[in-house]
Amino acid sequence: MSARRQPAPRLNNRRAEICRTAAQMIRERGFDATSVSDIARALGITKAGLYHYISGKEALLFEIMSFGMDQIDAEVVVPTRSIRDPEERLRQLMIRHARIATRAQGAVAQLADEIRALPPPARKKIKLRMRAYFDFVRDTLAELHAAGRLRDIDLTVATFTVLGMILWQPRWFRQGGRLTDEHVAVQVSELALAGLLRPQARARQRGLRIV
Amino acid sequence: MSARRQPAPRLNNRRAEICRTAAQMIRERGFDATSVSDIARALGITKAGLYHYISGKEALLFEIMSFGMDQIDAEVVVPTRSIRDPEERLRQLMIRHARIATRAQGAVAQLADEIRALPPPARKKIKLRMRAYFDFVRDTLAELHAAGRLRDIDLTVATFTVLGMILWQPRWFRQGGRLTDEHVAVQVSELALAGLLRPQARARQRGLRIV
Repeated sequence: MSARRQPAPRLNNRRAEICRTAAQMIRERGFDATSVSDIARALGITKAGLYHYISGKEALLFEIMSFGMDQIDAEVVVPTRSIRDPEERLRQLMIRHARIATRAQGAVAQLADEIRALPPPARKKIKLRMRAYFDFVRDTLAELHAAGRLRDIDLTVATFTVLGMILWQPRWFRQGGRLTDEHVAVQVSELALAGLLRPQARARQRGLRIV
Repeated sequence: MSARRQPAPRLNNRRAEICRTAAQMIRERGFDATSVSDIARALGITKAGLYHYISGKEALLFEIMSFGMDQIDAEVVVPTRSIRDPEERLRQLMIRHARIATRAQGAVAQLADEIRALPPPARKKIKLRMRAYFDFVRDTLAELHAAGRLRDIDLTVATFTVLGMILWQPRWFRQGGRLTDEHVAVQVSELALAGLLRPQARARQRGLRIV
């Protein structure tokens, strides 16, 4: 509510706006069919103005995917990695990741398929970041498994299914309807936890705080 | 193993081959960037030969989506709709649908997004069929809810999540690896059932036959 200028957040807001608008257009029309001029027009700026931020269409795609991974790092990994109890860490990461995924009609989250349009070095960088996040989720499940708290399920199957349960939400959820994003995220994470964990290994976790 | 000719299955095989090859190309390149000539070349036939089966690219897309829905009807809905116990029906439908979804690298199952490329009347026909299938899954969950066997979860959230757990499998599963499609389908359906159903309402179902 302060009137003082904060340059960093403003730059971040501009980055978010460009990434989300571009992601939505690319998702609707396909990467090949979307031009830099189209995106500039949708943002209400000139093509030259957009080139102030990005050097070309592939660079923009890389920027959108980096933006998505930055959000996951800042809003999912950093706030949850120090949660000691792996069940609570899993719950929090599912809810927090779902929040990002359904934001702005899920435009950024649903662009992952377009990774094929990136030049190999850029593609490799994004894939390494995706892989690190996959391992973060998998390690949490492995910890539950080691403690005998996981049902009989393959860790790879469990990890992909957890990520799918998060990333499916933007495919059907619409803001402003009967359900809130938070309501959906909590219900889906509860379904996952009840499905993954042995019932006798739960309950005692209930006292932990949901942030 | 009989040497006798069976025209109907052969025609069906041809239809499946055309639909799967075209679906894979459209998925890789995007609908706009894929031409009928490209698809004919990939099938090893002439463009005229392909026009023997379809009248154009939009008709082909409609054909692929109808093929997908035909498979769901024949291999999921028809064999499971008469299963009286809703838990067993849900398990069977998840396993059977996953089998179709991961077939041929999931090309057909993953083309649903391209529905936007269909002319409105064709799009409406496919959407009505998708909606009927959604209702089939939702009705099964509603039956479990009415019997007090479902955990506290919104039926819409539960239905979309069940469908997402099935349709996510082709996004990461690859045939010929450490896990079989059947193994993955069973594990994912068990995760869903354990997550959706109250534990005290289960167990007695265990005697039912898995087909």
